Amino acid sequence: MESLLNQSRKLCPFLKRTSPSTLRALSTSSSVNAVGGGGTMSNLQIVARRCPVMSKALAVQSVRNSAFSSSSLGLKPSGLARARGSSAGQKRSYVVPSKPASIQASVPNAADAASVESLHIRAGVYDTSKGICPHGAAALRAAKMAEGMAPRATARVTRPVNVVPAAHHSGKFDYEAFYGAELEKKHKDKSYRYFNNINRLAKHFPQAHLGTPDKLVTAWCSNDYLGMGRNSEVIKSMHETLDIYGAGAGGTRNISGHNQHAIALEASVAKLHAKPAALVFSSCYVANDATLATLGSKLPNCVILSDSLNHASMIQGIRHSGAKKIVFKHNDLVDLETKLASLPSHVPKIIAFESIYSMCGSVGPIEEICDLAEKYGAITFLDEVHAVGMYGPHGAGVAEHLDFEAHRAGKPKGTVMDRIDIITGTLGKAYGCVGGYIAGSAKLVDAIRSLAPGFIFTTSLPPATMAGARTAIEYQAKYDGDRILQQLHTRAVKDSLEARNIPVIPNPSHIVPILVGDAEIARAASDSLLEDHGIYVQAINYPTVPVGQERLRITPTPGHTRNYRDHLVSALESVWNALNIKRTSDWRAEGGLCGVGIDGMKLQNIWSDEQLGISGGSAIAAPTVHMKAGGKIVVGGILEREVGRVISTIA
Amino acid sequence: MESLLNQSRKLCPFLKRTSPSTLRALSTSSSVNAVGGGGTMSNLQIVARRCPVMSKALAVQSVRNSAFSSSSLGLKPSGLARARGSSAGQKRSYVVPSKPASIQASVPNAADAASVESLHIRAGVYDTSKGICPHGAAALRAAKMAEGMAPRATARVTRPVNVVPAAHHSGKFDYEAFYGAELEKKHKDKSYRYFNNINRLAKHFPQAHLGTPDKLVTAWCSNDYLGMGRNSEVIKSMHETLDIYGAGAGGTRNISGHNQHAIALEASVAKLHAKPAALVFSSCYVANDATLATLGSKLPNCVILSDSLNHASMIQGIRHSGAKKIVFKHNDLVDLETKLASLPSHVPKIIAFESIYSMCGSVGPIEEICDLAEKYGAITFLDEVHAVGMYGPHGAGVAEHLDFEAHRAGKPKGTVMDRIDIITGTLGKAYGCVGGYIAGSAKLVDAIRSLAPGFIFTTSLPPATMAGARTAIEYQAKYDGDRILQQLHTRAVKDSLEARNIPVIPNPSHIVPILVGDAEIARAASDSLLEDHGIYVQAINYPTVPVGQERLRITPTPGHTRNYRDHLVSALESVWNALNIKRTSDWRAEGGLCGVGIDGMKLQNIWSDEQLGISGGSAIAAPTVHMKAGGKIVVGGILEREVGRVISTIA
Repeated sequence: MESLLNQSRKLCPFLKRTSPSTLRALSTSSSVNAVGGGGTMSNLQIVARRCPVMSKALAVQSVRNSAFSSSSLGLKPSGLARARGSSAGQKRSYVVPSKPASIQASVPNAADAASVESLHIRAGVYDTSKGICPHGAAALRAAKMAEGMAPRATARVTRPVNVVPAAHHSGKFDYEAFYGAELEKKHKDKSYRYFNNINRLAKHFPQAHLGTPDKLVTAWCSNDYLGMGRNSEVIKSMHETLDIYGAGAGGTRNISGHNQHAIALEASVAKLHAKPAALVFSSCYVANDATLATLGSKLPNCVILSDSLNHASMIQGIRHSGAKKIVFKHNDLVDLETKLASLPSHVPKIIAFESIYSMCGSVGPIEEICDLAEKYGAITFLDEVHAVGMYGPHGAGVAEHLDFEAHRAGKPKGTVMDRIDIITGTLGKAYGCVGGYIAGSAKLVDAIRSLAPGFIFTTSLPPATMAGARTAIEYQAKYDGDRILQQLHTRAVKDSLEARNIPVIPNPSHIVPILVGDAEIARAASDSLLEDHGIYVQAINYPTVPVGQERLRITPTPGHTRNYRDHLVSALESVWNALNIKRTSDWRAEGGLCGVGIDGMKLQNIWSDEQLGISGGSAIAAPTVHMKAGGKIVVGGILEREVGRVISTIA
Repeated sequence: MESLLNQSRKLCPFLKRTSPSTLRALSTSSSVNAVGGGGTMSNLQIVARRCPVMSKALAVQSVRNSAFSSSSLGLKPSGLARARGSSAGQKRSYVVPSKPASIQASVPNAADAASVESLHIRAGVYDTSKGICPHGAAALRAAKMAEGMAPRATARVTRPVNVVPAAHHSGKFDYEAFYGAELEKKHKDKSYRYFNNINRLAKHFPQAHLGTPDKLVTAWCSNDYLGMGRNSEVIKSMHETLDIYGAGAGGTRNISGHNQHAIALEASVAKLHAKPAALVFSSCYVANDATLATLGSKLPNCVILSDSLNHASMIQGIRHSGAKKIVFKHNDLVDLETKLASLPSHVPKIIAFESIYSMCGSVGPIEEICDLAEKYGAITFLDEVHAVGMYGPHGAGVAEHLDFEAHRAGKPKGTVMDRIDIITGTLGKAYGCVGGYIAGSAKLVDAIRSLAPGFIFTTSLPPATMAGARTAIEYQAKYDGDRILQQLHTRAVKDSLEARNIPVIPNPSHIVPILVGDAEIARAASDSLLEDHGIYVQAINYPTVPVGQERLRITPTPGHTRNYRDHLVSALESVWNALNIKRTSDWRAEGGLCGVGIDGMKLQNIWSDEQLGISGGSAIAAPTVHMKAGGKIVVGGILEREVGRVISTIA
């Protein structure tokens, strides 16, 4: 399939320039034909009309069918949708023949590509284009491939290609069979997800129990990175708020759901990022989606430049905005600048990117992107979801970390964080609760507050959740011991795995991605860790990561002290042996992948040794880590001592 | 503005048939011109090309500009976007002249309508069309008006109309000025929202305090309809879960965020609706958005039939799906059937509607819609957000209520609820917590679970929230006293207001919408109630309700006992006098609005007198209501007794 697409790309400039995801979007998005009573045509059809090869075919088709379509409305057909919708064959299958125009305009989107392909054949285009015109056929296939999402009419494109998609259907649609087929696809490509029942125990962090309380495991992949979900101050504030203000907010922010907790939380978020204002959402998925969708649709002719590894929430928000999207290569400043430079100066542009990309741990070049944004008149939209609470003197994220001393001194003016226009973050990972937010200028925040349906029309977070999240932010802003210990534990895990020839994808952050490279083996490794070793690490498979880059993603916390680490490393060693999973040296022999087995990939950590209060760069040798940072003494040994007791309960 | 649009509609069949919201969608949505390197053209332009008047104008323009656009890519221009994008004037302003083609194809969407208008003038179309061709101009104005959302380039359409939108811009885009202008528009049309700081007190329900704890008010517009947010069993389960399992879930459902609380909650939801499966989301906004977007994009050629009063979450989900959307008139079965009948039998169709429409309290004809769905091979998507917990013997909603005895007897087979394919509900209103869900067949739920990004890529709700919500569902499934008392209080409020000639919009549900009919007066009434009478009722203004139908929306609860009601009614009387707000009789004299002042609008309540255990139809006369329902005795007087103490604290 891949090679066929590549072959087609050589022949067609359209396919060459268009990404699989764009092709898919084109074939599944549609434009309303309001003149004809609401019929649709896919954007792929619109594109096809601009192609010198395809446009001829479409014109032939259009003329052939014009007699049908112009009769009912007195309008001339001018597009493929009308032409096809009016074909005689389709007419036969309709229920109410007295309303042909509005019915016939209802051309199936999903069969568009197939029909485009068919039109090539019928108009004899195959003959005029060196025997192969890839446009229709390859677009269809590319759309199928794109992002693993099936085209909307998979069931139909498997039948013989026909310009009249409805001709052979007489019964009603079988919804259950369709759901079943979609699920079958997920099973077949190994992307079907089985959820593990994991109940993380606040008083036995980082332990969790499975379906029954006696089956204990150690959670090694939670995003409660700092264990704030069991922090006594957070829990206390939640208990108190729950007692006084009840379980829920009782309404949207506009209708009885705005309260002192929302006000205080947004003030804390704004202060954390040194911005004039902030706005809290149900989740950061919603924050990203709603903010980008609103800005992209409101800013006139907005163009959104999006890092190729951006999170699904940003991808959705950009798609929902309807704005023009330009994807730049992951962390590639040259590619980004080339794309920025190709756009008119006055056109509004948003550069959307992340500080830490959660599945590989890579870090965005924030300062350099700010430079480019200023040079080309763009605004920056930075997702710090995996970084808030974890980096910087106050836990505001990587942007804060870049000017560590300035922020520690309370002087944010002119820093990288100060230059970022919109920062988004979560309350559900390092802050241990749930919810998301944006921070930015007062007018920006007020505009999103006033315009984004995903904010306006949804019930506020419960008062206790907002109080707990605020406590977590304030706690981390004052105390850096948790995130320092987390970094030390991360280094220790990475060092141990490296020493064992177990392939960690190199990165400068707190994420420990271990390359497996196969969906079934990754899942088997995860299962074996859980069942045989009492360790919970979820396998990360396609489509979260590309096929062939499947991995285990490990996230150490301040609670993952030495005995837990030793247990993890020996369990991984055992599983790697049992399943004969590739080692770092194996990847090196193959030329490397994702940085594994490639020399010179050792990256400078975000937290420097100095900032961590250590020297020598490794914490693994020290049974009890004493460190000084930010004027405070952190005693890792307190956590270390719990391990002996806890480890014995693991099966 | 309205009259101008109406005038234009008489002249143009396109405008006549197209709703303001569709016009807006057309002018702000765009189609990618991938051939030319990613330029865009709005769907309004595409439509315009089909208009016999406009197409000539566009053709003229296209020919004029073809010399420019064909030079760089070797392709002939075939659309307005290319033609306009390539005009010489625009060229001058570009930063990188070596890339003219890809840049020039990037035609501003937002200026489309203005440019279409301009094209009319330049091509002399005004002369050929009886002096006025309303297409471009009125479409622009309609787009501006539609749903109060400004077209994407308002700042630009105010300048002299010019076919080369970029010609006079040389600087960078001023984002802050743009946000400011958007906000200014909200201020001008009175849709800018001021949030009230309302802190509902669990132990003094339905009271709340304002910014400081000593300023008490009575909350009369919360969606915590049953006071479950302060229910002791709910609070207890949340405290316990918080202690054992901590503040947050710590991950997405796939990665460490799936637990016994999610499993149990989904089992309770499925059981409540007598469905094989259920799926919990961050909110019902997300549930509706994600489910409709996923189904609409996945089902081949899916058509979604949407009630005209559907909630924003459904509207967004349908928009995001890219599926064909057909809006049917609110609760109009004839209109719905006409539209269903116009579609091919085999095409998948979703009928999306609500059981209770929250801003007017109207109730969907659920059973009849099921009949139509079966007849035409559609599936039903029923939003029971404002009904779950409130109707039916177990609180499953209006669908359950329709077969009250069958469900009370535990025999759901063949009932209306059984026939609904997808039920969505919230945990944040009558259940007092936060979150939303869908319930349906096992395969449907598994498909959404496996495919919907809004479910997959977001942190799970906290264990305590899920435990609390489940407790609330189970509590209400066993005890109907709260919802019966709520209905009695609703009847009492409605009766009292009716007796006072205060205009309640008639409806058969628990919502008490009081018609004001003016945005500023509604807001002044709300402010006066809060400041002068210690009563919090939010004004509901455009765009949540149409201009001219502004209202106060009152939601009685089991806690709003007699003294609270008397206080409310006398406060409303006072405010109605002070602000000289129209009475029912005034509306009647004008011919009525929204059912107010129209005789014969008295509707059969969903809860019958018999189901409420009363006779005579009104509960207002009884100082203490004793009733028997579902074999349990409910003593309203328990709540009544609190009133004397509480009311004295109100300013």
